[in-house]
Amino acid sequence: MLDKTLRMNYLFDFYHSLLTEKQRNYMSYYYLDDLSLGEIADEYDVSRQAVYDNIRRTEAMLEEYEQKLRLLEKFETRRSLLAELRKAIASDQAVEACNSLIDRIEKLD
Amino acid sequence: MLDKTLRMNYLFDFYHSLLTEKQRNYMSYYYLDDLSLGEIADEYDVSRQAVYDNIRRTEAMLEEYEQKLRLLEKFETRRSLLAELRKAIASDQAVEACNSLIDRIEKLD
Repeated sequence: MLDKTLRMNYLFDFYHSLLTEKQRNYMSYYYLDDLSLGEIADEYDVSRQAVYDNIRRTEAMLEEYEQKLRLLEKFETRRSLLAELRKAIASDQAVEACNSLIDRIEKLD
Repeated sequence: MLDKTLRMNYLFDFYHSLLTEKQRNYMSYYYLDDLSLGEIADEYDVSRQAVYDNIRRTEAMLEEYEQKLRLLEKFETRRSLLAELRKAIASDQAVEACNSLIDRIEKLD
C-alpha cells in the first residue's frame, strides 16, 4: 500500500477532471504544493475547518472513484507487466512468453 | 468513429459503475439486450418518453465522462500499440523498436 500522500497524488492525477474547481484547487495546494490548511484558509478567506472538511470529502470521493473505476490499480498492474515484458524482450525470450504478457495487459482494460 | 450503438456499448462498459442502478438497467435493456423504448416502458410501468429522456441523458453523461477521462480513447490507442508490438516481436525486430512501443503505451496512463 502506498503512503497516503503519494496515493492521493496518484488518485488526484487520475480523477481530477471529475472534481469541481474548488476541490481541485484545495487538493492541489494541499497535496502538490504542500501548503498547510491554515495557509489555504487564508488564501480563500474561509475557516481552517472548512478547508479541512472539503479536503476530507474530496479524498473520500477520490477513493470512491477508484473503487468504481480502478484506474490506479490497473495502472500499477500494467506498469509491472510492461516492465516484465521489457525484460522478456531484452533477454530474447520466446515470442509466446512475450505474447502471453501482452494478453494479460489487454485483459486489464 | 464507431457506430453509435457500438460506441455506447463501449462507453457503458467503461463507465457503468458511475451510473445509478436505474440508468444502468435502462441502458443495458436498450443497448445490450436490444429492447425497444416501449418494451422498457412496459417493464417499468413508466411512459415511453420517460425512458427515452433517461437514456438520452445517460448517453450524454457517458460522453461527458469520456471527455473527462478518455478511457475509450486510451483503450483504442493502447490496443493498436499492443498489436504493433506483437508484430514487432513476431518479426524479431530490434529490442529498441519494441521498447519504444512500450514507452508509448506507458505514456498513455
